[in-house]
Amino acid sequence: GFAALAATSTFAFQQMSAVDLAQQGDDPAWAITEGLTTEIGPRPAGSDREAEARKWAVATLQKMGFANVREEPYQMPVWQRGEEKAWLTGPFLPQSLAITALGNSGSTGPKGIEGEIAYFASFDALVAAADSAVKGKIVFIDNQMEPTQDGSGYGLYGRGRFMGPSVAAKKGAIGIVIRSIGTDNHRNPHAGVTNFADGVTPIPAGAISNPDADQLVRQRQRATGPLKMKLLLTPKTIGDQTSGNVIAEVPGSDPAASPVIIACHLDSWDLATGAIDDAAGCGIITAAAKHVMTAGQPRRTIRLLWAGAEEVGVFGGQAYFDKHGKEKHAVALESDFGADRVWRVDFSLPDSADDLAKRIGVALAPFGVVTGHGEAHGGADVGALIQAGVPAVDLQQDGTRYFDLHHTPDDTLDKVDPAQLRQNVVAWTATLGLLANSSDSELP
Amino acid sequence: GFAALAATSTFAFQQMSAVDLAQQGDDPAWAITEGLTTEIGPRPAGSDREAEARKWAVATLQKMGFANVREEPYQMPVWQRGEEKAWLTGPFLPQSLAITALGNSGSTGPKGIEGEIAYFASFDALVAAADSAVKGKIVFIDNQMEPTQDGSGYGLYGRGRFMGPSVAAKKGAIGIVIRSIGTDNHRNPHAGVTNFADGVTPIPAGAISNPDADQLVRQRQRATGPLKMKLLLTPKTIGDQTSGNVIAEVPGSDPAASPVIIACHLDSWDLATGAIDDAAGCGIITAAAKHVMTAGQPRRTIRLLWAGAEEVGVFGGQAYFDKHGKEKHAVALESDFGADRVWRVDFSLPDSADDLAKRIGVALAPFGVVTGHGEAHGGADVGALIQAGVPAVDLQQDGTRYFDLHHTPDDTLDKVDPAQLRQNVVAWTATLGLLANSSDSELP
Ligand SMILES: [Zn+2]
Ligand SMILES: [Zn+2]
Ligand SMILES: [Zn+2]
Ligand SMILES: [Zn+2]
Repeated sequence: GFAALAATSTFAFQQMSAVDLAQQGDDPAWAITEGLTTEIGPRPAGSDREAEARKWAVATLQKMGFANVREEPYQMPVWQRGEEKAWLTGPFLPQSLAITALGNSGSTGPKGIEGEIAYFASFDALVAAADSAVKGKIVFIDNQMEPTQDGSGYGLYGRGRFMGPSVAAKKGAIGIVIRSIGTDNHRNPHAGVTNFADGVTPIPAGAISNPDADQLVRQRQRATGPLKMKLLLTPKTIGDQTSGNVIAEVPGSDPAASPVIIACHLDSWDLATGAIDDAAGCGIITAAAKHVMTAGQPRRTIRLLWAGAEEVGVFGGQAYFDKHGKEKHAVALESDFGADRVWRVDFSLPDSADDLAKRIGVALAPFGVVTGHGEAHGGADVGALIQAGVPAVDLQQDGTRYFDLHHTPDDTLDKVDPAQLRQNVVAWTATLGLLANSSDSELP
Repeated sequence: GFAALAATSTFAFQQMSAVDLAQQGDDPAWAITEGLTTEIGPRPAGSDREAEARKWAVATLQKMGFANVREEPYQMPVWQRGEEKAWLTGPFLPQSLAITALGNSGSTGPKGIEGEIAYFASFDALVAAADSAVKGKIVFIDNQMEPTQDGSGYGLYGRGRFMGPSVAAKKGAIGIVIRSIGTDNHRNPHAGVTNFADGVTPIPAGAISNPDADQLVRQRQRATGPLKMKLLLTPKTIGDQTSGNVIAEVPGSDPAASPVIIACHLDSWDLATGAIDDAAGCGIITAAAKHVMTAGQPRRTIRLLWAGAEEVGVFGGQAYFDKHGKEKHAVALESDFGADRVWRVDFSLPDSADDLAKRIGVALAPFGVVTGHGEAHGGADVGALIQAGVPAVDLQQDGTRYFDLHHTPDDTLDKVDPAQLRQNVVAWTATLGLLANSSDSELP
């Protein structure tokens, strides 16, 4: 293939060369994912560990040869996990539940609370319920999310987590427990943030694992009277702390051209080492940029954003936008949906980029990636940019397994399949090379 | 099929009828497994919960129409779990490990202990090590058990759990942590008992999950100096407590004929509800006995033994043997290897039973069960009987998934496949009908 390629344009040669590196060369995506999860481990937003992770990131990116590597700090409010335990306490013998507090949960106090369970089959059922069905009780929302390749369902079922606690608090509940927003059947609760509406006092809010939710449902079917639950959640808020983004660049040959921005997030939930969410994402985007850089200087600058504090409210993405939102960006991409293979590419590009999109689709086809018909939405950390009109490309990862692991103690390196991780890097490298060498008539 | 069957002997008709019931009738195996795990949950040996489980068992067996249903209590020494936490503490940032104390573990005291890790690739490597390599350190044994259909490997790799702590203690270790004797990759440690040799003072001994063991190994590869671990395990022994077996019978038509004994164990580890270990076993043997009873009175009495306190040293099996070991038993069987399908039958029968074994093999073949060439060893609770010469039949279950779940928080009802559970009952019913109607010239 080499001789044939050499006969085509220098431009095409460069692209293949970067993709060749991605396919056959070093595997910096694995090295980053392994290093970050092994040496730093969990990286909660606004913590000392996240600060150590930023130092690790700066050192790693500098060593890899990127330019303008720096931290961009900001302040953010920090919520901290405390004790977390729960039991079904009646009418049967007490049984312990695998529970975790949702981010922003209130505290039960050190003695915990006990109450009758108010059962709701779905978030919508809770919304429809009279206050009297909820008042003084511990709400349970029994949404069962099923796996899908594109991750759809997270939005629908996730409402129980995002908004359920606020709705329950407004109706007078003393606490709320939800079936985890997850597709596995392990005794692992799925963490994640919830948001209380303005003026609503946070109540204790937790997620139990799917097997524990199944057990609750079975007990409910067998019980003649109401079910009872004891809940002990003692998280606290500790005010504003320092978090930060890490930025690095591959300087483009044309200083006047707008940069391509590619993002991941450096923070993780605290229950695991955040391998698929989102160490792998940082590995993928960084490996792709490295391969493009090694193959030859691109025309546009490639800017890497390893965002901080995504999990608890996209504070890093917002900080980036506040600082850089006025700068021109050619196109934005993010990798934040695990480490399984890219199966589809979606575009939200100006009409002037129709041919560019076609070239990307052709370049990706050999790697099992189909061109979708949907819009690209980027990821949370480039969401504000895209909202403001920056074009976007989504390299959609296979999400079938993602919500088995998402935000659980099981998000560890062994869940990353090295072959699929490399396919991500290949797809990203092919796409990034084309975007970073696109003309000013194609992208803004 | 019915008319054709009616044309064969009454005996054959009865057998098919019991198997028909097992295939198409009620599903008492599921009802027992669901009921016991939902209403009682975890059933640690010698605990109040195990006592409640015995009451539940007696009521259930009586309601099902079994005769001579009774508890047979005994005393046994009880070890109780306390706090259990561990961290890798150096040279990298502290990382929490998913750990559980092994049964009979010593305590670290409430402040925990911290020490250098002495790494051993296997139990045999620990045995071969000089005391000086272990003294004052926390031993880690890195055995990785792989899944097999017949469960072989548990004996080999299990030595790290059964004997590792005693060997480490003798060599002067201050604690020991092993890679869980399990085949999954979830953040679930596998509990289980360990035994300290006479005169050896128990040291703190725990098992960490496979992903945590992987993390330890990766840190070891990256660290330039020794790894450190902090360990907090505060179990205690509380002296002799009451445990007990539950016995029930299907009275045979010939009071002079020796009984068939079928066993399971009622106790479970405390981290989960013990669905596959061994509520399902009790469901399987009881459903089979019920179907045989419903189809017509067998010649031999069938005695059901729901043994107590198997997990921590087979105290129930020993108590049964102490009380009944001198009685004649025709043959012994046990179900204690999960709820996945029976795939092989093995026999340890007298020569006089060659034709009986052949009839069983023929009866099982339609259900996917092959006749093996190995010996039958029964289960732990009938082990003393078999040791003393009682014939045995093993209905070998598929163990490929068993050690993913064994003794973990994940041993919950959702892991039981109703279709495979029913296949177990069918195989047991076919076998039990033939054994319970065997002649005195075939079995003792
Ligand atoms: Zn993420
Ligand atoms: Zn996340
Ligand atoms: Zn067992
Ligand atoms: Zn067991």
